[in-house]
Amino acid sequence: MISFENDYMTGAHPKILERLAETNLEHLAGYGMDPYCESAAQKIRTACECPDAGVAFLTGGTQTNSIVISSMLRDYEGVIAAVSGHISVHEAGAIESGGHKVLEIPHKSGKIEPDTLKKYISGFYEDSNHEHMVFPGMVYLSYPTEYGTLYTKEELTEISDICRFFQIPLYIDGARLGYGLMSRLSSLTLPEIARLCDVFYIGGTKTGALCGEAVVFTKQNMPLHFMTSVKKRGALLAKGRLIGIQFDTLFSNNLYFEISRHVIDMSEELKVIFHEKNIPFYLESPTNQQFMLLENKRIRQLEDQVGFSFWEKYDDTHTVVRFAAGWSTSLEDLHALRNILS
Amino acid sequence: MISFENDYMTGAHPKILERLAETNLEHLAGYGMDPYCESAAQKIRTACECPDAGVAFLTGGTQTNSIVISSMLRDYEGVIAAVSGHISVHEAGAIESGGHKVLEIPHKSGKIEPDTLKKYISGFYEDSNHEHMVFPGMVYLSYPTEYGTLYTKEELTEISDICRFFQIPLYIDGARLGYGLMSRLSSLTLPEIARLCDVFYIGGTKTGALCGEAVVFTKQNMPLHFMTSVKKRGALLAKGRLIGIQFDTLFSNNLYFEISRHVIDMSEELKVIFHEKNIPFYLESPTNQQFMLLENKRIRQLEDQVGFSFWEKYDDTHTVVRFAAGWSTSLEDLHALRNILS
Amino acid sequence: MISFENDYMTGAHPKILERLAETNLEHLAGYGMDPYCESAAQKIRTACECPDAGVAFLTGGTQTNSIVISSMLRDYEGVIAAVSGHISVHEAGAIESGGHKVLEIPHKSGKIEPDTLKKYISGFYEDSNHEHMVFPGMVYLSYPTEYGTLYTKEELTEISDICRFFQIPLYIDGARLGYGLMSRLSSLTLPEIARLCDVFYIGGTKTGALCGEAVVFTKQNMPLHFMTSVKKRGALLAKGRLIGIQFDTLFSNNLYFEISRHVIDMSEELKVIFHEKNIPFYLESPTNQQFMLLENKRIRQLEDQVGFSFWEKYDDTHTVVRFAAGWSTSLEDLHALRNILS
Amino acid sequence: MISFENDYMTGAHPKILERLAETNLEHLAGYGMDPYCESAAQKIRTACECPDAGVAFLTGGTQTNSIVISSMLRDYEGVIAAVSGHISVHEAGAIESGGHKVLEIPHKSGKIEPDTLKKYISGFYEDSNHEHMVFPGMVYLSYPTEYGTLYTKEELTEISDICRFFQIPLYIDGARLGYGLMSRLSSLTLPEIARLCDVFYIGGTKTGALCGEAVVFTKQNMPLHFMTSVKKRGALLAKGRLIGIQFDTLFSNNLYFEISRHVIDMSEELKVIFHEKNIPFYLESPTNQQFMLLENKRIRQLEDQVGFSFWEKYDDTHTVVRFAAGWSTSLEDLHALRNILS
Repeated sequence: MISFENDYMTGAHPKILERLAETNLEHLAGYGMDPYCESAAQKIRTACECPDAGVAFLTGGTQTNSIVISSMLRDYEGVIAAVSGHISVHEAGAIESGGHKVLEIPHKSGKIEPDTLKKYISGFYEDSNHEHMVFPGMVYLSYPTEYGTLYTKEELTEISDICRFFQIPLYIDGARLGYGLMSRLSSLTLPEIARLCDVFYIGGTKTGALCGEAVVFTKQNMPLHFMTSVKKRGALLAKGRLIGIQFDTLFSNNLYFEISRHVIDMSEELKVIFHEKNIPFYLESPTNQQFMLLENKRIRQLEDQVGFSFWEKYDDTHTVVRFAAGWSTSLEDLHALRNILS
Repeated sequence: MISFENDYMTGAHPKILERLAETNLEHLAGYGMDPYCESAAQKIRTACECPDAGVAFLTGGTQTNSIVISSMLRDYEGVIAAVSGHISVHEAGAIESGGHKVLEIPHKSGKIEPDTLKKYISGFYEDSNHEHMVFPGMVYLSYPTEYGTLYTKEELTEISDICRFFQIPLYIDGARLGYGLMSRLSSLTLPEIARLCDVFYIGGTKTGALCGEAVVFTKQNMPLHFMTSVKKRGALLAKGRLIGIQFDTLFSNNLYFEISRHVIDMSEELKVIFHEKNIPFYLESPTNQQFMLLENKRIRQLEDQVGFSFWEKYDDTHTVVRFAAGWSTSLEDLHALRNILS
Repeated sequence: MISFENDYMTGAHPKILERLAETNLEHLAGYGMDPYCESAAQKIRTACECPDAGVAFLTGGTQTNSIVISSMLRDYEGVIAAVSGHISVHEAGAIESGGHKVLEIPHKSGKIEPDTLKKYISGFYEDSNHEHMVFPGMVYLSYPTEYGTLYTKEELTEISDICRFFQIPLYIDGARLGYGLMSRLSSLTLPEIARLCDVFYIGGTKTGALCGEAVVFTKQNMPLHFMTSVKKRGALLAKGRLIGIQFDTLFSNNLYFEISRHVIDMSEELKVIFHEKNIPFYLESPTNQQFMLLENKRIRQLEDQVGFSFWEKYDDTHTVVRFAAGWSTSLEDLHALRNILS
Repeated sequence: MISFENDYMTGAHPKILERLAETNLEHLAGYGMDPYCESAAQKIRTACECPDAGVAFLTGGTQTNSIVISSMLRDYEGVIAAVSGHISVHEAGAIESGGHKVLEIPHKSGKIEPDTLKKYISGFYEDSNHEHMVFPGMVYLSYPTEYGTLYTKEELTEISDICRFFQIPLYIDGARLGYGLMSRLSSLTLPEIARLCDVFYIGGTKTGALCGEAVVFTKQNMPLHFMTSVKKRGALLAKGRLIGIQFDTLFSNNLYFEISRHVIDMSEELKVIFHEKNIPFYLESPTNQQFMLLENKRIRQLEDQVGFSFWEKYDDTHTVVRFAAGWSTSLEDLHALRNILS
């Protein structure tokens, strides 16, 4: 059965599996000290035009958010995020588990608005009781957001300026970064992302890897002994090669961007099909997830023929569902979907 | 160059890579809800003769220790471990990071002696100040130990009895469990391990997997909503299949035990070679790691021809080094070693 | 200068100082094991009509909230609170410091509305992703609230029923409990509070003690080895008598209720004065804090003659200020205020 | 009944109670912003000859240790302490609760030996696996120690030098600091203590206060926004005056030192009595606690006439007991003891 359920339902891009097999018998140092990790880091530095960046490889998104945030915040600080942010809602309290509050602020289609941010931080310092409150110590945002939307270059620049004014780091969750960068509406490049923020991660799991995220500290600001902080949180793989080889492959021959562009092409074609079939959009996103409004009756007809995911109840007879494209989504899948929907 | 540096310096057993490739395009549910995770769990339950066991898959050893211990201990409790235990020394404070003390007790060749344990716990309750102290809430031990040694069935039974008497769980770190079970000196089977303890893990990373450990809660004692606790600690993989498929493969056709036996065979042959060459043992272990005493001069001669790891300084002219066998160690490697040493 | 700045700006009620002096040379056991702690606990049990309650004495409100919440929540749970709740805003992240998220929900004049609460918890369990989210594990509310408002008996009963339906404890922050109970609008007695919730605390610091709060676990649900959990958080006083004697005094001869009634009388008189003087109320509270709307010009005239606290900016020419009554507020103070305002 | 059970079994020195009463009705700012806290801090700076020191007031010893250590350590660090240190044994895991390991090293009569310390830290950095281990980030010691013993000026200087060489702070637990300073064997003054360490606390609870400890950051090294870190850990008193007034009194007219000297005088007289009566010392301490070896039979005779505390079992017929002097111990008490023992 064809499926558009999510972007992590198949394994790895074939080139990744190939490289894992080719290198399988090489004797490599453990714990990320192998040459593939170093080579991958170097390729990422080049792609980011950030020759001095610190690069570290972790296994998943929540783990990455949790480690980056807790190793950068000071004791008395919390992290500002949209109330819809992944760390606010869907990480089971991982940030709080590290002892820090997520300072939730309103969002617009998943995005933090620069004005809202500025007022929040100014308001904090103007409050005469602020020494009894959690200090804003970092800004977290997702690019693309949890709603599949994108910050413009102007918006991100404004947010970056606010962070620098208040001297707090800007951290970008790039679980689906490639889809943001390759979106037809993107106004930002990877070097621009790197320049505007202080730390971000390039998601591997949702762009064709088996697992793995690459954290980039762009301003020579990797926390001291970060490897030990990673170990302390149980996130240091003995066979660090597993992630190093995957990212080395993704950042060779432009593979990461090619996968991302392919997924965007598939997603754009998905939109064409939904428009053709007059299926209403709940949210038409410029990245790889489309949110559709379906009659419950229609859902029951479709769900045996095509996979998709339930997003939220809309009213008694309608539901919002999500169709996502991933690295393995093919034109054949889209063709089949067109047939099913007709 | 041949190498005996450690048991995680090559990738995965070929059957694992094959299965990952074969299943790569299957559309599977995320977060460990796929059929391979379920099948692997079922095979592990069968192998443990523990039909009701709760089984969960995690990525690495420190992560597993940290999550199991912190989700089972109560607020006022700590975990007893040998002062040489992995959690005591080599996990960068992961247990303390979760808010709990490691209560370190003396060891003999890496093993906790039942009498020492009993006296420690009894002594705690006899101390009139014990309400100001950390309660012993769990016993942690490694099988094999960090020194490659093994508890006998009698010793483990005695420790298990002590734990039950004091009503605290016994947790076994099985990072190298297979090598313990397949050791020629082993007096314990997997079902016996499962019966004697309350929770243990079967290490994958060091027995032929790319990554992955299988936690087994043997007494219907998996903590409630364990999946959420795993997520909270950043340890839930989106592509949970990565570990499920590996363990499903390891527990099909006896592969886990075959790999382990092969490694033990290689390690026994290593011992034969060292005896032949009159190289003194610092510690002759029944599992896959041998600790040798070498002259520093000899080390400098050897290190360009064969990989091994430095363990500790012995005196000004001698050093303890470790030779380990792993899943990819071959008779050819041993043959080459014999030639190098002659 | 007279002052209505807050309810903790003077020391202790004279009877408390007297008792501390009278008992000063008695040789008493440390760490809360003295007869005054036991006697105070017994008097509190009687006053609550809760003969089996567990009673513990702590030093301050944030400490109490932090210890009660972290020792009652399970690993995967957070605590629901109004977005205006003290733990949400003014405890510097103390709850998160213990590893748990404050699940903030909307409020109405500082109160959680039963419907909002019910929808939040139901919605959580209906969400198909809820295993990736923080489980609601407790409800926290303040009586009186941070706005000086009071839940009616009907409202509190409804909230209590919701908690019992979902089997999570209801915790009441009683930093100013006495003022709630003695309010002329109060519809709840101390035994009713005790019956409706699972745990609450009776604030001492803001009702005439030097320091100290009495936690009451009403359902034989004091966490096991709570004393050790208190010690672990640095909250166990060597001279536990300091709090025991104070609460023993407060709960002798009705002193706690007399102090509270006196403060309410003073606060009601404050309201009369403001009405007389046609000073507009921003929020007219039934407890001991009145929120007034003053012209900035007027504020500058007043602030050299009487103490009050700035609450928030209202507009460019007006400010909300707070006048609070405390145990040492006297008729003379009110008389002086009347003169100043005329 | 006379008692030598401990040094916290009576209330406060009368001058402290007097000052609390005299100042009771003053309207003072909350949270430690009152003039008594400032005056006390200033007097402590003067007494320490440390005009730029940061001074903060906390409530108890475990709380102080926990907050100082967790707010000064970096993420990847732990604190070195003697295995007999208060934080190692008798704080219920408070340090670990903050996420940091206590790195326990051997002691001699409660003291860390400089050589042991130096070897431990050097050994850590020489260990090729040290990035997998907890970094030594601070040295904790008690003056006097838990055994009542004292570091000489030479020893403390040597330890201080080691800490500076390795660039880690030295923290001194001064729960009974006064008794160390006033001991007839003391070779250290308060300014010397302040100069040799980076942070220490002056214990109030055990030298005549109701509660309270004064933390002194001697090197302009008070952690940024320390007040917020204190609040986050529930340790900020609304009526901060309670501790400020006590320390202001203790550091007026030399009271702190007079109390301490009186206690030392009483303790020396205790020793004289035990020598007279030929009661063997288990440990004869230069400070306020004496450890005596008594026959169990004798203990049963004595315990109805005089209070003391059981320390540890010595053999089947003997027990080690502790006699402590405190601020309220008087010559009459000693006279009575002499009579009882004859």
